[in-house]
Parts: sequence; structure tokens; C-alpha cells
Amino acid sequence: MILSALLTSVGINLGLCFLYFTLYSILRKQPGNVVVYEPRWVAEENSQHRSFFNLERLLSSPGWVARAWKLSEEELLSISGLDAVVFIRIFIFSLKVFTFAGIIGVFILLPINFVGNQLSTDSSDLINKSLDSFSISNVDNGSNWLWIHFSAVYIFTAFVCYLLYAEYDYISSKRITCFYASKPQPHQFTVLVRGIPVSLGSSVTESVESFFTEYHSSTYLSHSVVRQTGKLQRLLWQETVIASLSYEFTNVVMISQSDADKWYRRLVKLKAKNLPHKRSGRDGFLGLFGRKVDLLDHYEKKLQDIEDNVRMEQSSVVEKEVPAAFVSFKSRYGAAAAVHIEQGVNPTEWVTEPAPEPNDVHWPFFSASFLKRWICKIIVFIACIVLTVLFLIPVVIVQGLTNLDQLETWFPFLSSLLSITFVSEVITGYLPSLILQLFQRIVPPIMMMLSSVQGHNALSQIQKSACFKFLLFTIWNVFFANVLSGSALYQVNVFLEPKEIPLVLAEAVPSQASFFIAYVVTSGWTSTASELFRLFPLISIFMKKKFAGKDDDDFEVPSVPYHGQIPKIALFGLLGVTYFFLAPLILPFLLVYYCLGYIVFCNQLLNVYAPKFETGGTFWPIVHGSMIFSLVLMHIIAIGIFGLKELPLASIFCVPLPFLTLLFHDYCQKRFLPIFKAYPAECLVKKDHDDQNDPSMPEFLDKLVTAYRDPALKPINYSGRSDGHDSLLQHAA
Amino acid sequence: MILSALLTSVGINLGLCFLYFTLYSILRKQPGNVVVYEPRWVAEENSQHRSFFNLERLLSSPGWVARAWKLSEEELLSISGLDAVVFIRIFIFSLKVFTFAGIIGVFILLPINFVGNQLSTDSSDLINKSLDSFSISNVDNGSNWLWIHFSAVYIFTAFVCYLLYAEYDYISSKRITCFYASKPQPHQFTVLVRGIPVSLGSSVTESVESFFTEYHSSTYLSHSVVRQTGKLQRLLWQETVIASLSYEFTNVVMISQSDADKWYRRLVKLKAKNLPHKRSGRDGFLGLFGRKVDLLDHYEKKLQDIEDNVRMEQSSVVEKEVPAAFVSFKSRYGAAAAVHIEQGVNPTEWVTEPAPEPNDVHWPFFSASFLKRWICKIIVFIACIVLTVLFLIPVVIVQGLTNLDQLETWFPFLSSLLSITFVSEVITGYLPSLILQLFQRIVPPIMMMLSSVQGHNALSQIQKSACFKFLLFTIWNVFFANVLSGSALYQVNVFLEPKEIPLVLAEAVPSQASFFIAYVVTSGWTSTASELFRLFPLISIFMKKKFAGKDDDDFEVPSVPYHGQIPKIALFGLLGVTYFFLAPLILPFLLVYYCLGYIVFCNQLLNVYAPKFETGGTFWPIVHGSMIFSLVLMHIIAIGIFGLKELPLASIFCVPLPFLTLLFHDYCQKRFLPIFKAYPAECLVKKDHDDQNDPSMPEFLDKLVTAYRDPALKPINYSGRSDGHDSLLQHAA
Repeated sequence: MILSALLTSVGINLGLCFLYFTLYSILRKQPGNVVVYEPRWVAEENSQHRSFFNLERLLSSPGWVARAWKLSEEELLSISGLDAVVFIRIFIFSLKVFTFAGIIGVFILLPINFVGNQLSTDSSDLINKSLDSFSISNVDNGSNWLWIHFSAVYIFTAFVCYLLYAEYDYISSKRITCFYASKPQPHQFTVLVRGIPVSLGSSVTESVESFFTEYHSSTYLSHSVVRQTGKLQRLLWQETVIASLSYEFTNVVMISQSDADKWYRRLVKLKAKNLPHKRSGRDGFLGLFGRKVDLLDHYEKKLQDIEDNVRMEQSSVVEKEVPAAFVSFKSRYGAAAAVHIEQGVNPTEWVTEPAPEPNDVHWPFFSASFLKRWICKIIVFIACIVLTVLFLIPVVIVQGLTNLDQLETWFPFLSSLLSITFVSEVITGYLPSLILQLFQRIVPPIMMMLSSVQGHNALSQIQKSACFKFLLFTIWNVFFANVLSGSALYQVNVFLEPKEIPLVLAEAVPSQASFFIAYVVTSGWTSTASELFRLFPLISIFMKKKFAGKDDDDFEVPSVPYHGQIPKIALFGLLGVTYFFLAPLILPFLLVYYCLGYIVFCNQLLNVYAPKFETGGTFWPIVHGSMIFSLVLMHIIAIGIFGLKELPLASIFCVPLPFLTLLFHDYCQKRFLPIFKAYPAECLVKKDHDDQNDPSMPEFLDKLVTAYRDPALKPINYSGRSDGHDSLLQHAA
Repeated sequence: MILSALLTSVGINLGLCFLYFTLYSILRKQPGNVVVYEPRWVAEENSQHRSFFNLERLLSSPGWVARAWKLSEEELLSISGLDAVVFIRIFIFSLKVFTFAGIIGVFILLPINFVGNQLSTDSSDLINKSLDSFSISNVDNGSNWLWIHFSAVYIFTAFVCYLLYAEYDYISSKRITCFYASKPQPHQFTVLVRGIPVSLGSSVTESVESFFTEYHSSTYLSHSVVRQTGKLQRLLWQETVIASLSYEFTNVVMISQSDADKWYRRLVKLKAKNLPHKRSGRDGFLGLFGRKVDLLDHYEKKLQDIEDNVRMEQSSVVEKEVPAAFVSFKSRYGAAAAVHIEQGVNPTEWVTEPAPEPNDVHWPFFSASFLKRWICKIIVFIACIVLTVLFLIPVVIVQGLTNLDQLETWFPFLSSLLSITFVSEVITGYLPSLILQLFQRIVPPIMMMLSSVQGHNALSQIQKSACFKFLLFTIWNVFFANVLSGSALYQVNVFLEPKEIPLVLAEAVPSQASFFIAYVVTSGWTSTASELFRLFPLISIFMKKKFAGKDDDDFEVPSVPYHGQIPKIALFGLLGVTYFFLAPLILPFLLVYYCLGYIVFCNQLLNVYAPKFETGGTFWPIVHGSMIFSLVLMHIIAIGIFGLKELPLASIFCVPLPFLTLLFHDYCQKRFLPIFKAYPAECLVKKDHDDQNDPSMPEFLDKLVTAYRDPALKPINYSGRSDGHDSLLQHAA
């Protein structure tokens, strides 16, 4: 790729970003879009934007940028929790790392690369220069200038390790502080027990009761057994199933409002308005198809049907116990002891784990048996490998696009079109990463699905597991698949000959620098800007309002899609670290990406996303691990490239670097990871002591008994009520 | 190697075994040897053999074989604990496995191998036939007979997995039973805390006291801080240092009797006997050198010196606190909770682990700091690698011996000697394994030393860690180094090209069958028989008695050298499993080895070894793991060999086998391993409940306070006593 192609790509994407920003600045002021752009405030019913039309609404105003920029950590913590703080700190951390790298890279390494003569460039014209002349490939073989690169690798590694340590330290101390500041919460006192053995003639409830009163007599409080509510859930959430499938793409609807709730809401609204022309509609999909009916009768009948079915099913479901229960204790320390000490003589029975927050529990697929979960885990593992291998197909196609010659041999009729400079520049510079990006959109939902099958019983755990899976997937399919282009078989072969890895990577990685610069610009810049614009939710809500007659109350605040975003950010980190000394030209583009990301996500966390759960910053270890992986990868490439560049001494001196980095990682894991796995006794006991003086504790403990009740089992009674809205709200609360 | 060479080796070793057995049967009856052959009974002062000379003493009697054979598991459990039972069950387990393998191998596979025609044998004479004609190499390429081998691999794997599961199940249930049957013991109530942070101006004692009274107020009982007693230990055990170094070779002396004890013992004895001619001796090494002195004066002076020094040092050592303490709790559950839950906010401080038994504590090198232990671990890891690499030198030399041609080219003057059939048969058949065996004797003590540096604070942990290290060392240096003969570099290269491994192994492993058969016979048979004979202790005790004037009381019962023996047994298991379908001729020899081992070690556990500690059978997971490794190695070789033998279908069908085996292993680890790591809450609480009705508990808890006192800090007072023996015994108790 030559410099002008890169500039084309940058130009297109800058234009797109600017367009998105402008559109966003205008659209967010329209009252109709408030559920798209400020759902958090709508949900809290304090939106200031429901004013009438005025001219200002059509003027783009960048005030939100300033607002997002000024967002302090304390403010973010109070409105979105520690997870959001950690999420934003990933951007800050990356900015620190790549500002340092950028200074070294652009002001020291780039000039050295540029004055090299290794690559015989045809044109002395800067604009037609290949991007490779800015990379290490251009430095003369055996040149002593390479020692500067060598020192840069060492200095950069030391700096990143220092930052990683400081960040881990900061986040872990923040985690403890947040715990101390937290109010008593049900999940702190509760343990999820699975694999409960049931003797013949007794029930799960009896079994749990007798076990815990015997072995935890001083701390045991109460329990609630999980029941098979699959059929009930299908009855209650018929409609939401479709919505939940589309959720991942549109980020609009979450499964938590039942169908009955919805029908009831509509009914109440219809009655309140009492407008005859609105009372007729169609009963089919999205209100577009089907017979014309009187909506009031139709809604009432629907509600009645659901209620009858649900009541019948609820009464029968009480019998269907799953051998799992949420067991609550009188103190946090008691619950922690039950989690950490193996309970039963058979380790596959009485398996305990910390309970998730009540609204974080993932009730569908509630798996209880140890064996079943073990088998599911293996199946999911295999499924992930298959998915990764299958995904190589689009990657190979994308790679074909960057080699136009190959494309012409495949489709000869395109050759006339491809000879136009602009078209070829668009195709090589922009299209490949766009296709990759589109394909990548479908992966996070699949990973979520796999993680939920795996046996996690909390949305937070599912997201964390999906995040890790998607990270591996991204690194493999975006980085390695593109670097080691060619058949999938060839890639696997490389990793079966470990001693060849440094040389193979050293040859392949620098040559893909231009592709990844383009990738940062398209996938990084534009997708971040489109995140702000929220195109899919915008269209989906518009469609619903127009055709399904649903209004603004019919929505839910989306939660932060950590599992989709964190791996992306980590991938850009990987690109930055590995290309830091190979092709420093990537660094300014990365810095722009991180700045953009910081502003956009601060804004989104302020206005759009509301936390569905609080894991206390446990996403950080994933980011830390990915950074360490990036460093080690950089070292391996460095070993290879100094060998290729005929500077064997530098190559040998690089060998200790990956080992030292891994040792550093090991130390960090020992020093900080335990804090992220569980809270230490010191904190638990201190909090328990504090609670003893709290007069509201007895009431809290009483409420614990019902905290973990399957929402499908909540009593349902709408049709009998006269005034709906108040009691509905009570029900929802 | 031809059959006759093997028979020579078998003949020599059978002769040696028979000699050892006969000598043992005679020597064990001599009263002077009773401390060598029956130290357990001497220690318990109920030996029946201190009779006068009679003729029967010179007749070899095999009565001890019957006694050992009849030893029941309950009996063994009661006299030597669960560890010894597990140790003996390794032999029983191996016998089961290889009886099954032997039946299939000798009656089905061996005839098939023998009738093959792949190897063109020169002689039809059975005795001069190469051993290779009994191995799979002799089966015709592509022959359908190989499907029998294929089925044998599958059936054998299934059978071994079944046995492994049953054994794991049995031992884990036995472990729980033993725990239920155990009396309250200090280590069940105690936790070892390391990395205690001390604020300025306060002491470790205060720090521990305040932390545990605050955070474990309901269960905390008492604590004793560890002190720096290095200098004190050197004062007390001056003489024993040399003895402890020689311990590993002679299995006679253990560090636990102090020098003062010894001098005092000698003094008392000398006074009691009051024989003037015995009262003069020399004061130098072993009583052989130095000036002639009056022993009574000499001993008294020595004792006085030690006492003075020790008292002075003891009074000063109280100040030298190490940031580590043994913290005792009121209940087992309380102690378990403190172990399992992270204590401090900083995971490198307040590091808890289950306390070892009081007499299992390894006081020297008591390392307390987290960072120091972490660094030591890394250093030990590197040291192990270096040791393993250095050890390849003798292995390569040994390999030279099996290839006589090479030896002749190295040392041409030997050619006339080597042409003698018997000499060449001895050299190829016997010498290599003897050299290997001698070299291997020095490795277990080195591994023990490395493990103790690593930061383990209990003898049992050190032995377990050394056992694992020595196992890896043995598998690598005996199996792989011999199989992949040639330079060390070549071996490492093989493992850097993973996809080549099956083919390389399939070519190399069968060709070494004859070497390993000889190895089983020499190293297995003879070393087991020599274990019975205890040559080194015999000589060492004879020397001491003759020259140093020490008598029978001056000895200690040796403990079972698990770390040296278990890896050896596991190595033979590895050989049996991998050669089962390659060269089934090895199996009968292995069966003889395991029978021999069973008898010999039953006898030794009865008469010689006394348990120094009780880990509750936690050596079993190591054996289980090594068996799984053997199976997977067999599968990899099978994949390679069916490929070599032009039966690719069988090769492909073998591929799932290692994965299934590893899945089985994973399940077993999840199902059983937690039981071996810690006792579950169910057991702990049950035992605690039982104790509540025990009237002796308050007294036991009172004693807990002083249970973990460094032996170096015990008050010392000999010279002032008039009658020594009784008070000495009290002191020892």
C-alpha cells in the first residue's frame, strides 16, 4: 500500500466520523430520539429534552463533548459503577502507553527507518512512497542503528510493565474501597449451591435445610431452591424471545419485562387516552399484518390468556425442583467460608460458588448437575475451535482484496473497474477491514450464547467468559490470520514448529503494517463513531414506533456490551505494541482512536448504557493478560527480526525479555489476582462488624429470603385491577 | 541384543537377588544387625532377637517372606499409616494392570509378533534370535494382524482407566475414613501464617494477636511465632550436620536428636557401666583420631560447653522473630476457614496454609517472606532444568556402552577384550543400567535439597515436591534420553517439532526394547533386593560400632524414602505401559519386579521404616498422573507406529484415544483431587461435633499452645541431674 491509498482511507473515515458526529449532535436533540440517545435519563424520568420544536434543535452543538470530557472518575463511579470506571481506564491506560510509544516511535524510530536504504523505492515522491519505507524493513541489514530499536524495545517493555503494575494496584485498591463503601447486598450474603444430592423420598428443600443447619448451624439463614421454569418462561416471554435475539444487534431490548407486563402497559395507556381512532389495529407481526381488531378487547383477551396459562403453570412448577439453591447466611464471612471450603465429601456434590446479584442471575439454561456442566464445557470448547476455523474463510477472502492482482485473476471482468485509481484505493484501503468488521459483529452474540450454554448462571459471568473467548478469537482471526495469510492449514503448521515462529512472524508481521494501519482507521475510528450514532437502535425504534404502535415507554436501557468492546480495544493495544518498533506510523492513528473512544464511551456511559450488574472491576485481569501477551509477542517478533536483519547479538539479548515479562506477569497474578477472585477475610469481617450496629440489618436479612426468586414465579394479577399504573409500578419495584 | 545376552543378564541378576535374599535371611538374625534390619522393633524395645548364639542363626529361613505376604491392609494402616498403605497399593495396582497386560501381551501379541517376517533374521536358532523378533517391528507392514494390536491398545486403556478410577475412589474414601478415625491432632487445628506485616514499634506477636483476635474472634485460640534459630541449631546439631548429609545415602540417621542429647546419653551409659577400660578414647572424628582422653571428663566437658552456649543463645533468640507464626484455632472448621479464605487485603501478606504435624516441621531454612519464596521457586526451577541437562552426560556415555561398535572406535585397545562373548554380553546387558542406577542414587537427595530451598516448611511437602521432581527427571533422563539417544540438542529439537513426535517416537521406542528389558532386570530386580539387604546402613553401622564406640542406642529409625522409590516404581509402570503392545516380552519381567517389590517393601515397612509424617495418602495423585502420562505416551507411539506400519486407518482411529484419556484424567482430578487437597466442611464439622462431647478436649487445646515450639528452643538441663535416663526419656517425650 502506498501513502496515497492510506490517505484516501483516512480521508473517507474522517469524513464518516465527522458525519456521524454531526448527525449525532443534531439527532440527539430530537425528542423522538431520546430513547435512543439518552435512555438512561428517560428511564429515570428526568429528561430535559421533551420540549417543543425550536430552531436550536437543528443546529449541531458539540456541548456533549465537553460534558463527556469533564466527566470525573468519582462521577462515573457513582452513576455506572466500578466496571464502567475500569472500562474507561482501559482507554486512559492505552493513551498513556501509546503517548510514550508515539514519542519514541515517531521522533526517534521513524526517522531512522526513513533514512534507511534497504528497500529500493522507485519514486522519490513522498506521496507515492510505499508505507514500508517507514517501517523497520527499510533499515539496512546489520546496521548499528538497529540498536536504537533494540533499546526502544527494552525501554518500552519496562515502561508498560510499570504502568501495568500501577494500574493493577490502583484498580485493586479501588475495588476494596468500593466494597467498603457498598451497602449490604443480597449477593454478599448468599451462595449458589449446585449438585445437591437428594435421598429417595425427600425433596431438595429438605436436603438443603438439613445439610446447612447441620454443618453451618451458626451462620445459616435461609435458602431458595431453583425450579424448572423453562415452560413458564416461554409463556411469559413469548414475544421477548425474538426481541432478545435481535438485542445483540440493536442494543435496545433486554429480556426482563414480561409479555404480560407489556400487554398490561399498553392496555392501561389505551384506556387512559381513550381515543377511538387509536383503538383499532392489526394483531399480526409488528402490528403490520393480520386481521383488524378492536385493540382494547384484543389486549384484554391476550392478557387474560397469559394470566390463566401462567397461573396454571406456576402452581405445577413448584414440584419441579432443580438440585440447585441459593443459600443465604447471616454474615458475609459465613457465606465466604461456605464458598471457599469444599462442602461435601464428594466434590461433585454441594458445589458452591458466590451468588450473583439477584438481577444478574441468568435463569434460562439453569444447569445444576456437575457432570452436565463438565460435558457442556467440553462441547463449548470444541464449538469455539470450530467457529474459529470456519471464520478463516471470510478472512481469506478479505486478504484476497488487499492483493488486487489475485482478485483480477479470480474475476477477470473486474479488471477495467479495478484499474481506476480511486476504486482500487477504496478496495485495498477500506473494503477489507469493513468486511472484517461486519463479520465480527456476529461473533460476540455467538460467544455469549456459547458461554451461557457452558453453565454460567450469571449474566456477568457469561459476559466475562464471552469477553475472553472473543478476545482469543479476535487475536487469532484478525491478527494471526491476516499476518500469516494463506491457507488455514499453513497457520496451524507454523505453531507446530515452535522454533520457526520468531522467523516466520518477523517476516510476515512488518509486511502487514499498512493493512493494520488501515484497519485502525476504519474499524477503530469509524466503528467508534458509529457506536455514538447507534444506527441500528435508531432504525429499530423508528420502525417499532411507526408500525407497531409502541411508544417510548416500551423500551429498556441497554447495558454496556463489555464482551464486544473490550476485546476490540485490546486488539488495538496488541497492534500498537507489536508495531511500535516495526512500523511506528501506526501510533498516531491509534492515539486518535483512543481519544475518540474515550470521549464517545464517556458520553455513552453517561447517557445510554446503564449497568445491569457490578463485578467490581474483574474485567481488568483480562486486559492485563492481553497486554502481557502483546508484549511477549513483540519480543518474539523482535528476536526474529534482529535475526533477519543480521544483528544476531541483539536477537540473543532479546531472549530474556519474554521470560522476564512472564515472570512479572506471574508476580502480578500472585500479588493482585486473588483480590479480584474474592474479598479477603479482613474486608468481610470489617463489613460484618459495621453491620452489627446498623439498625436496618434485621429487615435486610428478612428480605434475603425472597431476594432470589425466579421472576417467572412472581404472582401475576393484572386483569382484576381497576387502576393499573400505580399497582404496576409497585409490581415492577 | 540377542536372547542369550538377555538371559545372561537375567542369570546374573537372579543370582544377585538370591544372594541378597540368603544373606538377608541369615544376617537379620544376628543380634548385632538388629538395628539395621529391625530398627522399628528396637525403637519400641520389644525385639525378640537379642538372644544368645545358636545354630539356627546361621540357617537362612524364609519365614519373613510369609510374614510379609500375610500382612493385611488394616495391620499396615495401624502400624505405618495411610501413606504406607498407598505405597503398597501402588504395587498391587501395578500387579493388576500388568497381569492383565501380560495375559494379552504374552498369549496374543507375542505369537503374532513372532510369526511375522518383517525382520529378516539370520539365524533360525531361538537363542541367537534378536529380541526384536518378539516386538511389533517383526509384524509385516500393512498386515491386518496389526488390528489386534490396535484393539489391545483400546482394551488396555479402558481397563487401566477403570482401575485408576476405582483406585482413586478407594484411596479417597480411605482417606476420609482415616480422618474420621483420627484423634484430635495439633495440625488439624493449626494454620501456618507467613508474610506477617509488622508496623513500626510493634512485634510479630502483637501483630498476630491483634489481627486474629479482631478477624477471627470466635475461633482464635493461640499462636506461637517462629524465631530465627539458625545459630542455635548449629550449636545443638553440630555433629548431626555431617550425619544428615550422609543420611540420604545410608538411611540411618535423621536430624532430630540433638548433640547434647547424644553426649548425655553416652555419659549416662558410661557411668552406668563403670568399666575403666572403656573410659579412655580419642576425641577426634569417629573416635579414630585425636588425643587420648578420659572419656567421662571429656563427655562432661562437652556437655557443659554445649549447655552454656545454648542457654546464652536461647535467651537472645527470643528477640529474633521471623514474620511467621503457627496460629491455633478452637475448631478444625475455624482453622480451615482461615486457610481457605484470603486473609489480608494484600495477598502477599498473611499468607495461610495448613500447618504440618509438629514433628513434620522443617525448621532449618524457615522462609517467611512471600517475595523470597517466589524468587527461590524460580531459582529452583532453573536449577532443576540445569541438573536435568547436565545429567544427560552420563546417559550418553551409558548409551555408548549398548553400542559396542562405537565403544570400540572410541577405545580401540578394548577390541580384543570386547570380542569375548561373555564380556560383551555383560557390558551390553548389565553395565549400562548399573551405571545409570548408581548415578540415579545421587539425584533424590539433590531434589530433596532443592525442594527444601523452594520454601516448603514441612518434611512431607519437601518429600512430595522432591518426588514429583525426581519423577519428571527419571522419565526424561531414563526414558526419553535413552530412547532418543544422541546429543542432547537433538532431543530438545524433537520436542520443538510437535507433529514429528509420534513418528520419531515410533521409530525410536521399539528399538530400545531390549535395553529396557535389561533395565527392569538390573535396576528393578537387583535394586529391590539390595533395598532388603540394606548394604550401606549395614556397613555404616558396623563402622560406627567398631571405631566410634557408639552402640545400638545411638541410632534412629529411618523413614520411608517415598521421594526416591515412587518415581522408580512409576518409571517401571511407564515402561510397561509403553512397551505393552510394542514388545510384550518386557511384561513377565515387570511382573516379577512388582511381586518382589511388594514382598520386600511389606517387610521393610514392618521392620525397618517408621513413618515420620502422615499425609493421608496424598502421594497417590502423583502416581495417577504418571499413569495417565504413560497412557498418553503409549497412544502417541501407537499413532506413529501404525503410520509407520502402513496402516493409516488404525493410526487415525488412535487419535481420539489420548484426548479421551486426558478428559478422563480431568474428570478424575475434579472428582477426587479436592479431597486430597483439604478435608471438606462435612468431615471437619462432624469431627468438631464429636469433640464437643470429649472430656479431654480442654486439656488438648491447652497443649496446643506449646505444640509448635522450635525444638532448638526447648529448655536444656542435663548436667545438673543426678539420674539421667528417666528424665532424659521424659524430655524426649
